[in-house]
Amino acid sequence: MASAPAAKRQKSTKDVPYELIYWPGLPGRGEHVRLALEEAGASYTDIAHQKDGINLVIAQINPENLGDASNPPPCAPPILKHGDLTISQTPNILLYLAPRLGLVPPAEEDEDAIYKVNQLALTALDGLSNEPHDCHHPIATGLYYEDQKTEAKRRSADYIANRLPKFLGYFERVLQGEASKGGSWLYGGNLTYADLVLFQCLDGVKFAFPNATGRIEKEGKFGKVFGLYRAVQERPKMKAYLASEKRQKHYPELDEE
Amino acid sequence: MASAPAAKRQKSTKDVPYELIYWPGLPGRGEHVRLALEEAGASYTDIAHQKDGINLVIAQINPENLGDASNPPPCAPPILKHGDLTISQTPNILLYLAPRLGLVPPAEEDEDAIYKVNQLALTALDGLSNEPHDCHHPIATGLYYEDQKTEAKRRSADYIANRLPKFLGYFERVLQGEASKGGSWLYGGNLTYADLVLFQCLDGVKFAFPNATGRIEKEGKFGKVFGLYRAVQERPKMKAYLASEKRQKHYPELDEE
Repeated sequence: MASAPAAKRQKSTKDVPYELIYWPGLPGRGEHVRLALEEAGASYTDIAHQKDGINLVIAQINPENLGDASNPPPCAPPILKHGDLTISQTPNILLYLAPRLGLVPPAEEDEDAIYKVNQLALTALDGLSNEPHDCHHPIATGLYYEDQKTEAKRRSADYIANRLPKFLGYFERVLQGEASKGGSWLYGGNLTYADLVLFQCLDGVKFAFPNATGRIEKEGKFGKVFGLYRAVQERPKMKAYLASEKRQKHYPELDEE
Repeated sequence: MASAPAAKRQKSTKDVPYELIYWPGLPGRGEHVRLALEEAGASYTDIAHQKDGINLVIAQINPENLGDASNPPPCAPPILKHGDLTISQTPNILLYLAPRLGLVPPAEEDEDAIYKVNQLALTALDGLSNEPHDCHHPIATGLYYEDQKTEAKRRSADYIANRLPKFLGYFERVLQGEASKGGSWLYGGNLTYADLVLFQCLDGVKFAFPNATGRIEKEGKFGKVFGLYRAVQERPKMKAYLASEKRQKHYPELDEE
């Protein structure tokens, strides 16, 4: 019930497992939600592992779906269901999950932490996920890659030369800054979901552009960012998840030669 | 102080004016923040109206800026300062402002409303602001429009034919859904900041593609969405602001013939 008092609602959903609804067969934006749930050891279901998973996604984004009495319909996956709540949009799902999963400093200790961590997550998604993803279809998402290959190569070259260093440089600065409290994690000295988002974005960029990112890493300008990437990889829960069958694999893209 | 208790902090910033830092001379993403502040009648400063405004933006996003003890640096404007808080990213700034400005149902009455409204705002920004904006520079943001004109025309045609109706259709469904409580506003029966975001996104799309949006509006498939647009325009505070010198004007784009 949307109008239930806060305390009551939190109690009523405390033991309800989270349900992730996302396209089976690719990591995409759903993977950011998985990493948060896995790092926290949360109980959740994932329709990527159900045989008819794809139909559950399609039912959610069907033009006939008008939502329900308290939830607007989702426009696209990932979608999170939790009790009677249905929400979509990756950074929004993470915003909802983070205080529940301990992936952001508690509001009682650091009232505005959520806005700082959300800023970092949104920036990583913009510059290190949406932009490289658009390299694949600069003209139209509905056109085959083959029909926009020349444009995709031009756009990828620009991304690698200009945009990628801009965003890596930004996160390197965040890690150099005082608010990171030590330079290992983006904010406040402990892992937050923004670190997981940055890890996953960088993992996609490394997969899409292995030559370019290999060269950039060797040049050594963004040592703290690549250090954070390895530190996430080495966390016990992440290590186990990344090696598991549950981990969704990337697909190839548009590297430099 | 980032670690001050919630009640104390809210009291200490209650009478502190908001400071908006955004590029002078264009509406851009800063305009979403302005509309929220204007609709709420909030006290704020706007560096778009200061002579050296552009230098204040540049100082914030300078690669030397590492933020401070409690705030990571911003990557790009808009930036909001409020007391000792500095945050960036449009949907993040709106998330911070909305409960303070009464532009989202209070958490005590509708605990998860913020996640539903944030979902709607993020979706409008994705599909009706970022995507049409990218029509201008499908190959590279750093290249002149003249150097990617052919690609821009192809991308705009695809946007108008496929993506624009998809997103207008989505918001029409949201308004048809029960959670809108009546179909005038996107969520809960009263204006929220998601309505202001949708208005401003649609205002940009109407300006960029007047022929296409004129035709689409006449076809009548998205009557509730265009109705919401007019209802925002007619709100007394919006009407006064939109007619004022403070309103930032759009610049031309890539319409259908």
